Amino acid sequence: MEFPSKLIEDAVTEVAKLPGIGKKTALRLVLHLLKRDEEQTQTLAHSLTEMRLKVQYCRKCHNLSDDTLCGICANPRRDGSIVCVVEDTRDVLAVENTAQYKGLYHVLGGIISPVEGIGPSDLHIDSLIQRLTQQSEADEPVKEIILALSPTMEGDTTAFYLQKKLRPFQLKISTIARGIPIGGDLEYADEVTLGRSILSRIAYE
Amino acid sequence: MEFPSKLIEDAVTEVAKLPGIGKKTALRLVLHLLKRDEEQTQTLAHSLTEMRLKVQYCRKCHNLSDDTLCGICANPRRDGSIVCVVEDTRDVLAVENTAQYKGLYHVLGGIISPVEGIGPSDLHIDSLIQRLTQQSEADEPVKEIILALSPTMEGDTTAFYLQKKLRPFQLKISTIARGIPIGGDLEYADEVTLGRSILSRIAYE
Repeated sequence: MEFPSKLIEDAVTEVAKLPGIGKKTALRLVLHLLKRDEEQTQTLAHSLTEMRLKVQYCRKCHNLSDDTLCGICANPRRDGSIVCVVEDTRDVLAVENTAQYKGLYHVLGGIISPVEGIGPSDLHIDSLIQRLTQQSEADEPVKEIILALSPTMEGDTTAFYLQKKLRPFQLKISTIARGIPIGGDLEYADEVTLGRSILSRIAYE
Repeated sequence: MEFPSKLIEDAVTEVAKLPGIGKKTALRLVLHLLKRDEEQTQTLAHSLTEMRLKVQYCRKCHNLSDDTLCGICANPRRDGSIVCVVEDTRDVLAVENTAQYKGLYHVLGGIISPVEGIGPSDLHIDSLIQRLTQQSEADEPVKEIILALSPTMEGDTTAFYLQKKLRPFQLKISTIARGIPIGGDLEYADEVTLGRSILSRIAYE
């Protein structure tokens, strides 16, 4: 594609570096900005650079944060005895949106994936172990770890590795339930999920 | 969605203002930038603001341009006797990509649409008429106008309006051919297109 302007071309090239955005979409977005106020483009550019420069990772759980300690870790009403281990910040958001969990988190920052060359040392696993070994008396002692990882091969590998690492601490280790989604149709469920949901059936109380 | 950081929230809100990008996609893009070098975010932000501040519209054809005259209008090897009228810059790019057209362009900057309140006075129609009335002796005289507008109701209305406006100039006025796309299957063509392509059949020479 030959652009009428070097400025447009540069902008399109940069926008097209974002995942899932091709040249055509990038051009549409750039032309959209041209039709809007200059201010909108400036606010967008400013908020992106500010975010990139100033956002931090919580020193306790590695979640994204505006401070050294994130809002969840700093909240005294959260239950410090449960830690939910997740792959990244989006999973924290997903669990938070359920409003069903009041414990803390630990963000691994990825998942063990030999194909992509990501091993346990690339993840925040050591700092999870440290959270357990270096508990001060002021802290609520951790009693349970929930492994909330995706049910993929990489997720299962990571969960298996973590279970081994966590075994010495004699905590309750759990994983989120696998089964048929609420509103899901039995007919269309894959056999592995349906099989597991029969094995992990829940007794009526 | 409750974000762990105000900075992230602001960035997501701004990105989600772009057309076709929702909050979830915006979050994915923002988290992607966080995983990349700070430099990438800065280059992106810089290229967007630069583009927005500095890009101009060609004073002759209203195409986007880095200068007061765009690269196509300034190119002496383009055929100044033909002007192709298009809706916006993307259409210029589309025609340029065919490498089949060596004339000039005129970008209307939109299309007549009573529903959206866009009338002829909102488009660069007056300046097209001016291009025809104020031709200097140095310019190549315009002999043909091609109306390359989308075959929609708005496009047809605009083309009809332009034909009326251009009639006094005694130019050749043409429109791009409508018909079955190359590689298109007759079976799946809509009846209007197929009907038109029979009426406008082309004789073998």
